[in-house]
Amino acid sequence: MPIGYKDIIEAKKRIDKYIYRTPLDQSIYLSHNNTNVYLKLENQQRMKCAKIRGAMSKLTSLSEEEIEKGVVAISSGNHGAAVSYASNLLGIKNITVYVPKTTPKSKVEKIEYYGAQVVGIGENYDEAHEIGLERIRNSGSTFVDPCSDEIVIAGQGTIGLEILEEEPSIDTILVPIGGGGIITGISIAAKYLNPHIKIIGVQTSACPAMVDALKDNTYYETYPTKPSICDALVGGVGYIPYKMAKECIDEIIVVDEEDIGKAVSFLIKKEKVISEPAGAIVVAAIRKNYHIFEGRNIAAVLTGGNIDEDLMLELVNGY
Amino acid sequence: MPIGYKDIIEAKKRIDKYIYRTPLDQSIYLSHNNTNVYLKLENQQRMKCAKIRGAMSKLTSLSEEEIEKGVVAISSGNHGAAVSYASNLLGIKNITVYVPKTTPKSKVEKIEYYGAQVVGIGENYDEAHEIGLERIRNSGSTFVDPCSDEIVIAGQGTIGLEILEEEPSIDTILVPIGGGGIITGISIAAKYLNPHIKIIGVQTSACPAMVDALKDNTYYETYPTKPSICDALVGGVGYIPYKMAKECIDEIIVVDEEDIGKAVSFLIKKEKVISEPAGAIVVAAIRKNYHIFEGRNIAAVLTGGNIDEDLMLELVNGY
Repeated sequence: MPIGYKDIIEAKKRIDKYIYRTPLDQSIYLSHNNTNVYLKLENQQRMKCAKIRGAMSKLTSLSEEEIEKGVVAISSGNHGAAVSYASNLLGIKNITVYVPKTTPKSKVEKIEYYGAQVVGIGENYDEAHEIGLERIRNSGSTFVDPCSDEIVIAGQGTIGLEILEEEPSIDTILVPIGGGGIITGISIAAKYLNPHIKIIGVQTSACPAMVDALKDNTYYETYPTKPSICDALVGGVGYIPYKMAKECIDEIIVVDEEDIGKAVSFLIKKEKVISEPAGAIVVAAIRKNYHIFEGRNIAAVLTGGNIDEDLMLELVNGY
Repeated sequence: MPIGYKDIIEAKKRIDKYIYRTPLDQSIYLSHNNTNVYLKLENQQRMKCAKIRGAMSKLTSLSEEEIEKGVVAISSGNHGAAVSYASNLLGIKNITVYVPKTTPKSKVEKIEYYGAQVVGIGENYDEAHEIGLERIRNSGSTFVDPCSDEIVIAGQGTIGLEILEEEPSIDTILVPIGGGGIITGISIAAKYLNPHIKIIGVQTSACPAMVDALKDNTYYETYPTKPSICDALVGGVGYIPYKMAKECIDEIIVVDEEDIGKAVSFLIKKEKVISEPAGAIVVAAIRKNYHIFEGRNIAAVLTGGNIDEDLMLELVNGY
């Protein structure tokens, strides 16, 4: 399980030519006096999603034999689309994405667009996950786990490398926590380069799974979620992120759904940046807790830009 | 006046470390069958504006003596802010931006933010331009002309290099025309790399200055403009772009203001891309003239992302 800086450097070498080095833009609106806020715009990444880094890291690490046996993901969202897109770029044909049978056609089409075979199994995500994992075990194909795979996490860690290469003065990084893969990767890279850096996770109050897991000392593989606009941040945590949280995560801030919606609207209107709510959550955390960031140089990682059109309109008109 | 490929390569060497290599993303929504549309996302450039390339090209070409004598721009918009930002990055202190006295405070503050001294002269842009040029002549300082300076245009040309390096199959490039500096630079680069490439300019029907200049064989330094949402595309054309138009521009498409507004809305809702109207105009041209692009591989250059908040809301709610 231990993932090191070297793994992230290796991942970077493999994926660098396939991904965008996204901007780290200083925010005029969030910076003031001696507090500087930079936005790491992974919402402008290929497929508008940071997860492409992890998917690409895994796929570029496979042997020909493994590729022949097939690659599988279980996701109806960003991760599924990212794996399909990455396979297409690499010319990998034998790729299956399991989604719940209830997945809307638009999401299925987005994954299929880049060539993956989409298979509906189970009535919800938990069922799809269970059936999918069993099929993978029986087939010998490779599972691309979005948040509890060393090589995927090493790919996510390349975000941390880029942030500190661009702005070595960064002393605080805010990262959304869903399964926890992205914050784990970023933290390993950033703490190697600067052991004093503070890594702050952000969760929605609709699903504070990592907060409770750490409080209860219990691995919550699933977690009951209240209604949330953050598709990517619902459900349980990944096993590796949970086990590594004590060394990787210095603090977790929980924010309300309403503040996340306001952050989406703020980013569109002021920064002219379209972020999905699960990414804008880091900006919500800054806006609600400005006093604790006084004097710091903060990088806020906007992990994705795939937001539903109707929700986006509702938020810009509502806030 | 002749600007060559070599000038653009030289400009690229000077500016590469200061600018973003922006994405050339294929549009799923605009591509179909055998027609492929790629968006060159200069709205994600530093300062959300392609003009930073030209400003940076000019500023990096100056001698210490020239820098000491001072650098001047005349612009209340993207160009003024780009020159201020570029000066700041390069540590150039003696920088003045002339704007009309009527310029809104928000625009003045944006230019001042990066360190330029903003001076209000004249009641409108034409007056500011005239007074500003006279002051520059008397002071011996360097004028950064956004659309009729060889070195500025060479900087804009780097967009053409990036497009064809990323996607050598591109056979058509659509570029907005205001003064004409950006299309001229892109064309010189692109036609050197592929003499058969088609360079199509796009103008708003509120100000078809280049269309009329070429039709009338007359250099229109100023041009009467109807009300337009495209701030960056109003007024006359640049002298160099006018003189080079016959070799640089294969065709000009004129689109209506309403279609430009619809393109802004389309880009936000479907592509999740915030473009100013003056950039979205190229997408309007494609959507209104799809038949003429059948079978082509098109790059559409979105030149900027600075759109007024109220206008943006009006457009996404109206279309």
